[in-house]
Amino acid sequence: MQTTEAVHIGADELPFIDIGDGSLLKVLQVKRGEGLWIIENIFQAGYEVEQHKHTGPVWGYTSSGAWKYKEYDYVNRAGSFLYEPAGSMHTLQCIEDNTRVWFQMYGSNVNLDADGNITSVVDGDLTLQFYLAMCEEQGLPRPNVLVE
Amino acid sequence: MQTTEAVHIGADELPFIDIGDGSLLKVLQVKRGEGLWIIENIFQAGYEVEQHKHTGPVWGYTSSGAWKYKEYDYVNRAGSFLYEPAGSMHTLQCIEDNTRVWFQMYGSNVNLDADGNITSVVDGDLTLQFYLAMCEEQGLPRPNVLVE
Amino acid sequence: MQTTEAVHIGADELPFIDIGDGSLLKVLQVKRGEGLWIIENIFQAGYEVEQHKHTGPVWGYTSSGAWKYKEYDYVNRAGSFLYEPAGSMHTLQCIEDNTRVWFQMYGSNVNLDADGNITSVVDGDLTLQFYLAMCEEQGLPRPNVLVE
Amino acid sequence: MQTTEAVHIGADELPFIDIGDGSLLKVLQVKRGEGLWIIENIFQAGYEVEQHKHTGPVWGYTSSGAWKYKEYDYVNRAGSFLYEPAGSMHTLQCIEDNTRVWFQMYGSNVNLDADGNITSVVDGDLTLQFYLAMCEEQGLPRPNVLVE
Repeated sequence: MQTTEAVHIGADELPFIDIGDGSLLKVLQVKRGEGLWIIENIFQAGYEVEQHKHTGPVWGYTSSGAWKYKEYDYVNRAGSFLYEPAGSMHTLQCIEDNTRVWFQMYGSNVNLDADGNITSVVDGDLTLQFYLAMCEEQGLPRPNVLVE
Repeated sequence: MQTTEAVHIGADELPFIDIGDGSLLKVLQVKRGEGLWIIENIFQAGYEVEQHKHTGPVWGYTSSGAWKYKEYDYVNRAGSFLYEPAGSMHTLQCIEDNTRVWFQMYGSNVNLDADGNITSVVDGDLTLQFYLAMCEEQGLPRPNVLVE
Repeated sequence: MQTTEAVHIGADELPFIDIGDGSLLKVLQVKRGEGLWIIENIFQAGYEVEQHKHTGPVWGYTSSGAWKYKEYDYVNRAGSFLYEPAGSMHTLQCIEDNTRVWFQMYGSNVNLDADGNITSVVDGDLTLQFYLAMCEEQGLPRPNVLVE
Repeated sequence: MQTTEAVHIGADELPFIDIGDGSLLKVLQVKRGEGLWIIENIFQAGYEVEQHKHTGPVWGYTSSGAWKYKEYDYVNRAGSFLYEPAGSMHTLQCIEDNTRVWFQMYGSNVNLDADGNITSVVDGDLTLQFYLAMCEEQGLPRPNVLVE
């Protein structure tokens, strides 16, 4: 029976793992049945996430640094709120080091090449498996991600 | 400003369009930003929907006939309730004529070939565009689908 | 770890319990953390549900009979689709015997008296406890509701 | 027709209004039909939110300061993630000045007195009306909250 008590994950409770050139990822929560995944990233300047389209809504909460979508002019900085409806499509670019963002995501990232062909589909479950494997590889104890 | 009144769509208010061999489709509601699409199908025996994986949760309410997923033994009949969590994958097969089902779907259908390669991704918006185009082609008035 | 396989509940798998004058209720699914509850009712003519306001969205799928909201003219019959956005408020009245409806509900029913005062708040968890208690009282085996 | 482009709200685009003793509120997004409301608070030490129960899930992202629920020991600080499932119940207490938190909330807050009686029900729509009225009262231009 599922708890009806709030669950707190402090800033240092889960490790970040490296996703390239010093950019970092932690996975906080995955509700498989809902297609929900919540992650926190620390990006370094120059980090890019390939163009992708979301199959569900996404919210981004930025607490430091600066990043943008290549396709748009606005820049996410500390205190920025971002709402990405299902069907939105864009290419993430990090502008400043130590850019810290929480993403609350429903559904999958459908990754697209320059011609609009699907190259892969990434979801919460895949990302969780990757995160757990990377933690294990680095000899870290299994992180206590909130998983249903 | 969005209504806060319930919206009713009677059984005969929206037309069905043919999706092959007498099987039928109507689109009742699409919330683009949520990735929500609600459709009603009337399938004929032998109709098949290729293997697909859902990126969000899906609910199926069957009011007549019989259909199943190739991968499982249970059969949906009048009064059946079906919950398909995000990440579930299956191939729909209709067993009896005039099988009537409502599907309340979040996210996309990621369609897969026999080797597990992605062949296409279908969502509510695409399905709505198809439905509206088919209605227009048949000279029907633009159906009043509940779209946000 | 949550299944990623679809779960089927056949028409006769879960018992209906009496909620007054021959009107019936079964609870199909409760996701406590989401505030989701899915029920099926068979209402008899004259059955009424007091005025209530929804805190989340609700969908109603009617497979037989006739019912309406006192505040509106439209009548739900076999094949009717109903979308009730969060914030909608109404009083259910059943018109014909053996009116059968599935309700997929998020959030709570805030029940209101004639002066708009809150009389009670009903949610999926409460309804599940009531359903299980009624089944037990009638000597039925514990029904296999889909509960998270 | 709803945009499928992401919407950015920068840290200084929407004003904070005072909700007592220097604690502040801004409303970022309300999806009425979904029962979704997203706010940002800056609480001062000693600020309290009366005991309430949530009818939908809630997520809290803290970017500075310290706050807790009276009923639990853990303290939310910069970088804390909090998941509050539907049905969770608690009393918010701010511990340090300039405690900054985003809350992504579905459904309503059912406020309760010491005996567990319902004193009021607060939702996104009410909070939005309050926020807009306070902005108007202070002679501020109508803030561009993301409202559906």
